[in-house]
Amino acid sequence: MAPVTNGKIIFNEVPIGFPKPGKTLVYKEEKVDIDSVPLAPGDWLVKVLVLSVDPYMRERMAEGSAEDSEPGNFNFGVGLVVRSDNPSFKPGDYVHGVMGIVIDSSHKLSWSTYVGALGLPGASAYYGWKEHAHAKQGEVAFVSSGAGAVGSVVVQLAKRDGLKVTASAGSDDKVKYLQEIGADVAFNYKKTDTLEVLKKEGPIDVYWDNVGGPTLDAALQTAATHGRIIVCGMISHYSEDEPHSFKDLSMIMTKTLSINSFFFPDLHPKYAVEFSTTMPKLLANGEISFKEDATRGLQNSAEAILSVYKGTNFGKKVIVVADE
Amino acid sequence: MAPVTNGKIIFNEVPIGFPKPGKTLVYKEEKVDIDSVPLAPGDWLVKVLVLSVDPYMRERMAEGSAEDSEPGNFNFGVGLVVRSDNPSFKPGDYVHGVMGIVIDSSHKLSWSTYVGALGLPGASAYYGWKEHAHAKQGEVAFVSSGAGAVGSVVVQLAKRDGLKVTASAGSDDKVKYLQEIGADVAFNYKKTDTLEVLKKEGPIDVYWDNVGGPTLDAALQTAATHGRIIVCGMISHYSEDEPHSFKDLSMIMTKTLSINSFFFPDLHPKYAVEFSTTMPKLLANGEISFKEDATRGLQNSAEAILSVYKGTNFGKKVIVVADE
Repeated sequence: MAPVTNGKIIFNEVPIGFPKPGKTLVYKEEKVDIDSVPLAPGDWLVKVLVLSVDPYMRERMAEGSAEDSEPGNFNFGVGLVVRSDNPSFKPGDYVHGVMGIVIDSSHKLSWSTYVGALGLPGASAYYGWKEHAHAKQGEVAFVSSGAGAVGSVVVQLAKRDGLKVTASAGSDDKVKYLQEIGADVAFNYKKTDTLEVLKKEGPIDVYWDNVGGPTLDAALQTAATHGRIIVCGMISHYSEDEPHSFKDLSMIMTKTLSINSFFFPDLHPKYAVEFSTTMPKLLANGEISFKEDATRGLQNSAEAILSVYKGTNFGKKVIVVADE
Repeated sequence: MAPVTNGKIIFNEVPIGFPKPGKTLVYKEEKVDIDSVPLAPGDWLVKVLVLSVDPYMRERMAEGSAEDSEPGNFNFGVGLVVRSDNPSFKPGDYVHGVMGIVIDSSHKLSWSTYVGALGLPGASAYYGWKEHAHAKQGEVAFVSSGAGAVGSVVVQLAKRDGLKVTASAGSDDKVKYLQEIGADVAFNYKKTDTLEVLKKEGPIDVYWDNVGGPTLDAALQTAATHGRIIVCGMISHYSEDEPHSFKDLSMIMTKTLSINSFFFPDLHPKYAVEFSTTMPKLLANGEISFKEDATRGLQNSAEAILSVYKGTNFGKKVIVVADE
């Protein structure tokens, strides 16, 4: 077989503030002959089709993180098995996750769905909501980054549970999208003061936090008694030199709040089967919609990653590395 | 019967900062004839023996609280029924709580125990620990205000569950007491930097927070992955004009923390029976010890209340209103 391009996006150095394409993240490529790539017993070789870009990757680029000292960074993707020395993976199989799960394609969903609505963001939304929201019909939810990959699924799960949902996003287009997926109140936090909106729409029974910072502060101040705060992400903290100072945490006590973060792998054993039996169906019949924002070409990964930290992506950011 | 003194401690105005004896809290007394006090059907008349002083009372004196607009403040106490028009309460019965629970005195514990180790502080420690600590043998706990009414019970419950316990207090006497009740590491936070101690003794799996402020900040910074923070009180917030600004809450996410506050009445139905069957025995046979700090005379209540906010009390503050 003729040599093919094997591209790599290299984590070159720890970024200060935002990652810098070409400096902290560098694209390199080489030519490889697929037939002569050495394959150890049990290995399988995958042609990468789609890669996921997720906010949590920023943390793995932080000083002192495991990745800082150790190369071999990976993230979720979808690929096509081209060679295999493993009976579980046959050439022609499509795989996802860390390329270790064979896709059952009966629902005819696009490959990128497996890093999005059926991947880390969709499952994070599902697992976190089921575990920590304790949602009751008629309650009030607030979702920050509601138009994002995780947030948009949370908004729809909350609506399915019968909550009144307020959601924020960073552009008018995203606000429009939030209305389309069912948010009762959607606002552009760059134009409208979050605290003012929450004072009006609250008290907030469930706050799904994707951003941290002043938004979390506003949610704390407008929380309902027995409110639940689910901390999924704090993207506003990732690339700031000086983190936000929280004014007053005594609300935790006066409102009897619970604040929970969650680590995806901890909840996976509990919810994976339920998720994989309900979510593909909901997506296939359109009961839950999911928006993707694709960047084509691995050489453009660094810009794609940067867009996630700047919030300029609209929908789940994926990198389409190759067509089938 | 000859007239007796009926003293009252009046919540006179909302305090700014600390309550001020004689100004925000005022003592008044009158003479009453017990036999001629009108008793509505079902009522019972109690001679107050002991009253409880609890940190949470500060919040009920805050501007905008229910008590701010409405008189009739109450707190827990122990008393002797002197007259009754209610078959559940006979003259000669001792009652506790809001004077509505008849005491089973088989364990021969002092009356003040019923507002202390067997009252709100003891039960708060027990309920909150059982519900939220998820304690595992060999884990590391930190208890602030460890020598206080709630904290000292938490220290002992944590030791009974096999944890290594670090506890802080505000005087060397209290530190000595912490060592007596089994704390592995006890320190005076006025002399030793809490963050330094926690860096050395942590990471902290369970933090029982009685104080909030910089101590909570230090615990957040030194929390273990999957750490649990139980917010029982934030006394440092009660009487400060400017609450502490928390540096960085992103630890909640990076360490997958859970932070829970609890409201005593919510947990009461779940744990009351267990508590009332185990705790009196543990106290009676000395397996759990409890320290009280008694003020004699209702006319000294305001000073007694103030001491709790200043932390100058040593042990559970009670007001001994009258001997039997």
